[in-house]
Amino acid sequence: DGGSYDVVNDASSPAAGDCCAQQGSARHNWEMNYQEAAIYLQEGENNDKFFTHPKNAKALAAYLFVHNHLFYLMELSTALLLLLLSLCEAPAVPMLRLGIFVHATLELFALIVVVFELSMKMRWLGFQTFIRHKRTMVKTCVLFVQFIEAIVVLVRQTSHVRITRALRCIFLVDCRYCGAVRRNLRQIFQSLPPFIDILLLLLFFMVIFAILGEFYLWKVNFSFQYFNTLENSLVNLFVLLTTSNFPDVMMPSYARNPWSCVFFIVYLSIELYFIMNLLLAVVFDTFNDIEKRKFKSLLLHKRTAIQHAYRLLITKQRPSGISFKHFEGLLRFYKPRMCAKERYLTFKALNQSNTPLLSLKDFYNFYEVVGLKWKAKRNREHWFDDLPRTAFLIFKGINILVNSRVFQYTMFTVVAVNGIWILVETFMLQGGNFFSRNVPWSYIVFLTIYGVELLLKSTGLGPVEYLSSGWNLFDFSVTLFAFLGLMALAFNMEPFYFIVVLRPLQLLRLFKLKKRYRNVLDTMFELFPRMASLGLTLLIFYYCFAIVGMEFFAGVVYPNCCNTSTVADSYRWLNHTVGNKTVVEEGYYYLNNFDNILNSFVTLFELTVVNDWYIIMEGVTSQTTHWSRLYFMIFYIVTMVVMTIIVAFILDAFVFRMNYTRKNQDSEEDNGIVLEKEISKEEVIGIIELYKRSSAAVETAQLQKMVLQMDKYGQLSSVFLGRRSRTKSDLSMKMYEEEIQ
Amino acid sequence: DGGSYDVVNDASSPAAGDCCAQQGSARHNWEMNYQEAAIYLQEGENNDKFFTHPKNAKALAAYLFVHNHLFYLMELSTALLLLLLSLCEAPAVPMLRLGIFVHATLELFALIVVVFELSMKMRWLGFQTFIRHKRTMVKTCVLFVQFIEAIVVLVRQTSHVRITRALRCIFLVDCRYCGAVRRNLRQIFQSLPPFIDILLLLLFFMVIFAILGEFYLWKVNFSFQYFNTLENSLVNLFVLLTTSNFPDVMMPSYARNPWSCVFFIVYLSIELYFIMNLLLAVVFDTFNDIEKRKFKSLLLHKRTAIQHAYRLLITKQRPSGISFKHFEGLLRFYKPRMCAKERYLTFKALNQSNTPLLSLKDFYNFYEVVGLKWKAKRNREHWFDDLPRTAFLIFKGINILVNSRVFQYTMFTVVAVNGIWILVETFMLQGGNFFSRNVPWSYIVFLTIYGVELLLKSTGLGPVEYLSSGWNLFDFSVTLFAFLGLMALAFNMEPFYFIVVLRPLQLLRLFKLKKRYRNVLDTMFELFPRMASLGLTLLIFYYCFAIVGMEFFAGVVYPNCCNTSTVADSYRWLNHTVGNKTVVEEGYYYLNNFDNILNSFVTLFELTVVNDWYIIMEGVTSQTTHWSRLYFMIFYIVTMVVMTIIVAFILDAFVFRMNYTRKNQDSEEDNGIVLEKEISKEEVIGIIELYKRSSAAVETAQLQKMVLQMDKYGQLSSVFLGRRSRTKSDLSMKMYEEEIQ
Repeated sequence: DGGSYDVVNDASSPAAGDCCAQQGSARHNWEMNYQEAAIYLQEGENNDKFFTHPKNAKALAAYLFVHNHLFYLMELSTALLLLLLSLCEAPAVPMLRLGIFVHATLELFALIVVVFELSMKMRWLGFQTFIRHKRTMVKTCVLFVQFIEAIVVLVRQTSHVRITRALRCIFLVDCRYCGAVRRNLRQIFQSLPPFIDILLLLLFFMVIFAILGEFYLWKVNFSFQYFNTLENSLVNLFVLLTTSNFPDVMMPSYARNPWSCVFFIVYLSIELYFIMNLLLAVVFDTFNDIEKRKFKSLLLHKRTAIQHAYRLLITKQRPSGISFKHFEGLLRFYKPRMCAKERYLTFKALNQSNTPLLSLKDFYNFYEVVGLKWKAKRNREHWFDDLPRTAFLIFKGINILVNSRVFQYTMFTVVAVNGIWILVETFMLQGGNFFSRNVPWSYIVFLTIYGVELLLKSTGLGPVEYLSSGWNLFDFSVTLFAFLGLMALAFNMEPFYFIVVLRPLQLLRLFKLKKRYRNVLDTMFELFPRMASLGLTLLIFYYCFAIVGMEFFAGVVYPNCCNTSTVADSYRWLNHTVGNKTVVEEGYYYLNNFDNILNSFVTLFELTVVNDWYIIMEGVTSQTTHWSRLYFMIFYIVTMVVMTIIVAFILDAFVFRMNYTRKNQDSEEDNGIVLEKEISKEEVIGIIELYKRSSAAVETAQLQKMVLQMDKYGQLSSVFLGRRSRTKSDLSMKMYEEEIQ
Repeated sequence: DGGSYDVVNDASSPAAGDCCAQQGSARHNWEMNYQEAAIYLQEGENNDKFFTHPKNAKALAAYLFVHNHLFYLMELSTALLLLLLSLCEAPAVPMLRLGIFVHATLELFALIVVVFELSMKMRWLGFQTFIRHKRTMVKTCVLFVQFIEAIVVLVRQTSHVRITRALRCIFLVDCRYCGAVRRNLRQIFQSLPPFIDILLLLLFFMVIFAILGEFYLWKVNFSFQYFNTLENSLVNLFVLLTTSNFPDVMMPSYARNPWSCVFFIVYLSIELYFIMNLLLAVVFDTFNDIEKRKFKSLLLHKRTAIQHAYRLLITKQRPSGISFKHFEGLLRFYKPRMCAKERYLTFKALNQSNTPLLSLKDFYNFYEVVGLKWKAKRNREHWFDDLPRTAFLIFKGINILVNSRVFQYTMFTVVAVNGIWILVETFMLQGGNFFSRNVPWSYIVFLTIYGVELLLKSTGLGPVEYLSSGWNLFDFSVTLFAFLGLMALAFNMEPFYFIVVLRPLQLLRLFKLKKRYRNVLDTMFELFPRMASLGLTLLIFYYCFAIVGMEFFAGVVYPNCCNTSTVADSYRWLNHTVGNKTVVEEGYYYLNNFDNILNSFVTLFELTVVNDWYIIMEGVTSQTTHWSRLYFMIFYIVTMVVMTIIVAFILDAFVFRMNYTRKNQDSEEDNGIVLEKEISKEEVIGIIELYKRSSAAVETAQLQKMVLQMDKYGQLSSVFLGRRSRTKSDLSMKMYEEEIQ
C-alpha cells in the first residue's frame, strides 16, 4: 500500500496518513484521509488491485478524474461508437452506408478519445504500474494498430482486409461498466484447461472413428459420399457430433447393410451422450469450484480494503475504533448523496457494542450495511389510516377484499378463462382477418376486469405498496400495454398493433399459484443481471467472428451459388414454368450470409443453434477453399465453451438457490435483508451539535427538520427500517459459513 | 416381523426365534435361526421390504425355492423369450418370421412358466401380502391379459392389434437381476413432478409464442407454410424447440422481413437456452436430493436388517453379543461358499473390542466386511524371489526396467509414433486397397514392440500382478486382438478383418499420462454398471414405443410414399435418365420405418438424436392422420425425461467423485478398501476344536492344512489381507459423514 507519513501531532490527528498529506493542518489531513479511505473501500468493492492505488496528489487528481460516471460514460460511448462503426464500414448495412472518409474520420476521432482516456489513466497509475497492468497494455497495443490502420484507410481512401477490427471489443471489455463481462471472460478462461482436456478425448475418439469409418464404411460398404477421404470422414464425424447431419450421413450405408447403423449408434453414444455430458460435468465442477474460491478471495479483498480504510480513520489517541465524526467524514466521500440521518443510522447499525467507537470487527460489516435503504417505520398500518371515518371504512373494506383468498382465486380464474378464450378465439378466427376494425367485445370485458382489479388493488394497498411488489408491477405494465393495444385498435394506429399480441402475457400470472414457479421466476429475476452479462460476453465473441466472417466471406454466397456442392438444393433459387403455372423454388440459404454485420449476427446465431449449420458451412466452403471449414468449426467449439459455461452457470445458480431454500425452509418468506434501528431525540441533537461545529448547514437543517417532526408527533425517539434485497454474496456467506470460519 | 416363540431353555438356546421353530431341539432351533438371520441380512442387502419376510415353514421353503440363481435365470429367460417373440411375430424381421401357430404356442408356454413363477411367489408371500404387493399385482393383471390374447391369437390363427405387447416389459423389469432398472424407473418417476412443472412452463411459452407467431408471422408477414393454423404453429414451435427445423422455419418470413428473426431468436433464447437448462437444473437438483435420501434410507434399512439378525443370534444367557459359533452358523447360510478360514477372519475383522462376543455396534459393519476377499499376505516381494540366483537377477533386472519411468515413456512414445503412423498411412492409402494380401511391415514392427513389452511386463511383474491392473489388462487384450488381426490378414480370413480396425485403440493408452484422464476413465469404469442399467431402462422405453409404432405405422412408409407432404424429397426414390446417364435420386428416409422391431429401434434412435426427426414424423403423418404426431411428440418428451436423467446422473456421479478426490487429495492413491488381520496358531487350533465338536469335516480339514503350512514355515501366526473395491456407498458414507451423525 501507499507510504504513510508522520503528521502533526494535534489532539485528533489521524493515526496514519497515506499518499499526499505531507504538510498542512490536521483538518486538511483528515479530509485527505477520508478521501483515501473512501478510495480504498471503493477498490475493495470493485475488486481493484491495491497496487493501482494512487500514490501522490497528482495521481489522486487523475484517479478522481478517471473514476466518475461521466468518464465511464465517455469510455462506454467511444467503445460503442467504435463497435457500431462496423455497421457503416464496407461491407455495410445498406441503409447505414457511409463514405470511407466519413467513417474513417469518425474512427480516428474515437481513437483519439481513447488515447486521451489512456493518458489520463497513465497519470493515475504511473508509468511503472501502467506497464505492469496487462489489460491496459493489450489495449494500448490494439489502439496503436487501429490508429495506424485508420490512417492507412484515410490515406488510401479504400478499406483493406481489416481483421484487426475484431479486436475493437477490447475497448468495450475494458469499460468500467463491463466488469461483469471481464469476470465472465476470466471464468471462461479459467474453465478452459479441463475443457480442453476433455475436448482432446473427444477429438481422439473422433479420429479413431474417422479411421474406422474410412476403413469400414467406405472400403467395405462403399459409402462414397461421406467417408471417401480421411478429411471427409473427420468433417462428417465432427458434424455428426453436432447431430446436424444425422440420419443422412448414415443412410447410404444403412441402405446397403442395416448393421452399419451400429457404427453410428456407438459413435453417438460415446461422443454425444457420454463425453459431451462429461464436458458439462467437468466444466460445471470447475465452475462451482471457481465460484467458491472467487467468493472467498473477494471476501478477503474486501476485508483488506476495510483494514486499510480503518487504519486511516482511527486517531493516535484512540486507536481502538472510529468515532462518528470520522465515519461521517468517510461517508461524505464514499456516498456523497447520503443524507445526515442515513449516515448516523449506518453508523448505529454497524456499531454492535454500543460504545461511541466503531471497532474493526464492527467495521467489517461495512459493505453489507452501507447498501441499506433507510425509511422511517410508520406507525400507520395503511396509507388511509389518517382519512376521515367513512373513507377509512371504505378503503379498509377494499383492503380486506384485495387481501382475501377469494379475490385472488377469482382473479386467477378470470385469467385462466381469458387464456382459454384467447386460444379458442385464435382457433375460430383461422380464416378471418384478425386486425378487424371492430374491437372484439371479449377484449373489452377482460380489460375492464383487469382495470377494476388494478384500481382496487392500488387503492386498497396504497400505490406505493402496490408497486413495491414485482408481481404487481408486472400486472400493472401488462394491463397498461393491453390498454394501449386497445387504443391502437380503436384509433386504428397500425404501427402499434404489435402491442395487441402481448395480451397472452397476462397468462403468466397463473404461475404465481405454485411455489416452485414463484421460486423459479424469482431466481430468474435475480439471475437476470448475470445472464445479461453472459449474453453480452457471447455477443462480444459474435462480434469478433462476425468481423472475421465479413472480411473473408462477404458476398461469397448468393442464389444458385453452390450448384456444384452437396448442398446445392438449399441455395437454389429457380423461377420456372411447369404447365401454365410459375413455380418458385426457393432454397433461402443464400440469406444466411456474411454480407453485413447484422446478417452475420443472424448467421452466427443459426450456427449457434447448430441445426443444419453444415449447409451454411458447405455453401461457403464450396465458394472458397476447404480451409473455411476451420472458421466454422472453431466457432462451434467457442460457442460450445460459452454455452457450456452458461448451462453450468444456470445449473449452479439454481441448485445453489434451491439448496438454500431447502436449508431455510422453516425461516420466514424471503424479503431481503431488514434491519431496525431506533434514534432518540438526544442523539439527533448531539449530531446537530457536531455538524454545527463543522458548519455543515445542509446537514444541520435536515436534522433539525427531523427534530421538529418528532416534536410534532410528541415522540421521544423514531424507528427506522433499513432494507436491501438479498444478493448472491449474502447467500454464499450463509452457505459457506462453516468453510469460511 | 414374524412372531417370536418361546423355545426350550437349554444352555445355549437363542434369545428369540422367528417363523417356524415351534418345536424341536435347541440345535434345530439354532439352525432355523441362522437361516432366518441370513434371510434378514439378504433382505437388507437387496432392499426387500420386511413385510415380505416368510412367516412359516411352508413360506420359508417357497422363499428358498424362489431365491436362488436357477429360479432367477428362469425368470430372466422367460422374460427375454417373451420380449424376443416380437422379432418373430408379424410384422416380423424377414429372416426370423415364424408361423402364427409356432410363436403363439411359444408365447403360451412362456406365459405358463410365468404363472408357475407367480404361484411360487404367492406360496412364499401368502395371499394377503401378494395382493398388497403392487408390482406383483400389475404383473398378474398383465399376465392375465396376455394369456387371453395369446389364446385368441391361437384360436383365430391371426394376429390382431396387440398394443398390450408393449406391457411385456414388466416381466423383465420384475426380474431379480433387473433391480437396478427398477431403481432407475423409481428415480425417474420421483423426478417427474418437478419435471412436469417446468415442462408446463415450457408449453405455456410455446402456446404464447404460437399465438404470437400466428398473429404476427402469418397475418403480418404471410409466412404461409409454417404458421397458417394454430395447430401448425404449435407443431412447428414444438419442432423448433428441438431446433430440428431451425433455419428453415425462419427463412420464408426472414426473406420478407429481416426483423422477423427477432421472434425466433427470442423464442429459442427463452425456451431452448433458458427453460430447457432450467429443466436440467431442476432434475439435477431433485436427483441429487433423491440420491442422498435414498442412501440414508438404504443405510437405515440395512441397519434394521442387522438388528433383526442380531436378535436371532444372541443367546438368552449372553445377550450382549454374538459368539463365533453362531456367527459361523449364520455365514454358513448367508455365504455358503465361504471357507472356514474366511469366516473366522470376517469375525475377527468385525470384532473391534477383542472380546469373544460381537456387539451390535460391531455387527453394524457386517455388509462392509463380508464383501472382503481374504488373501494371505506374502512375505515374498516378487514372484521370482524363490528362484535360483541367476534367474533371480535376470528377473529382478526386468522388474526394475519395467517399473522405470524411461521404459514407460519409451512406450508412450512408441504408441504416439504408431498413432501418427496410422494417420499418415490412412492418408496415403486413400485410393489403394486397404486389405491387401501383403501385411504392412509397420504393423509387424509395432506389434513386435507391443509383444515384447507384454512379455517383459508379465515376466517382470509376474502374470498375476500384471493382470490385476485394469490398464495392463486393457493393453493385453488390445495387443491380443492386434495379433489376431495379423493372423486374419496373414491367413486371409475375411470374416475376421474387423479386428484389424481395432488397432487405433492402442492409442487410448496415451491417456494414462494425465491425472485427469485417469480420473475420468476410472470413474467411467465405476459408472459402467449404472450406465448399463440406465441404457437398459431406455431400451425398455424403446421397446414399448417400438411395439406401439409397429402396430400403428408398420408398412406405412415406402419409397415415394409421401409425395403430397412437405418432406416429399426425403422419401423420393427415382430412377430416371438424364442425357444418356441413369441418375438415381435416393431420399432414403423410407428406411426409417416401423416395419419390424429392429427397424423400429433404429428409427427410435434417430428420433432420440432429434436431428431431422420431423421428417420422419411428417412422413408418417402424411400417410396416416395428424394424430400420429402425438406419438412422436410423446416419444420426444419421454426420451427427454430419460436423457435429462442420464445427464443428471453423469453430472452427479462426476461432480461427486471429483469432490471426493478434492477432499482426499492428500490421502494415498485409491486402491479400494484393505484390511489386515493376523491369526495366531492357537486361534486356529481353537476353531478346529469348535468344528470338530460340530463334526464339520470339510472345515476341519481346511484349517488343519493351514496349521500344517504354518508349521512348515515355522510361523506362529499368519497375516491376511482383506480387499474389495470401493463402492459408491463407501464414498457416500464418507461424504455425508456429518449429516448421517
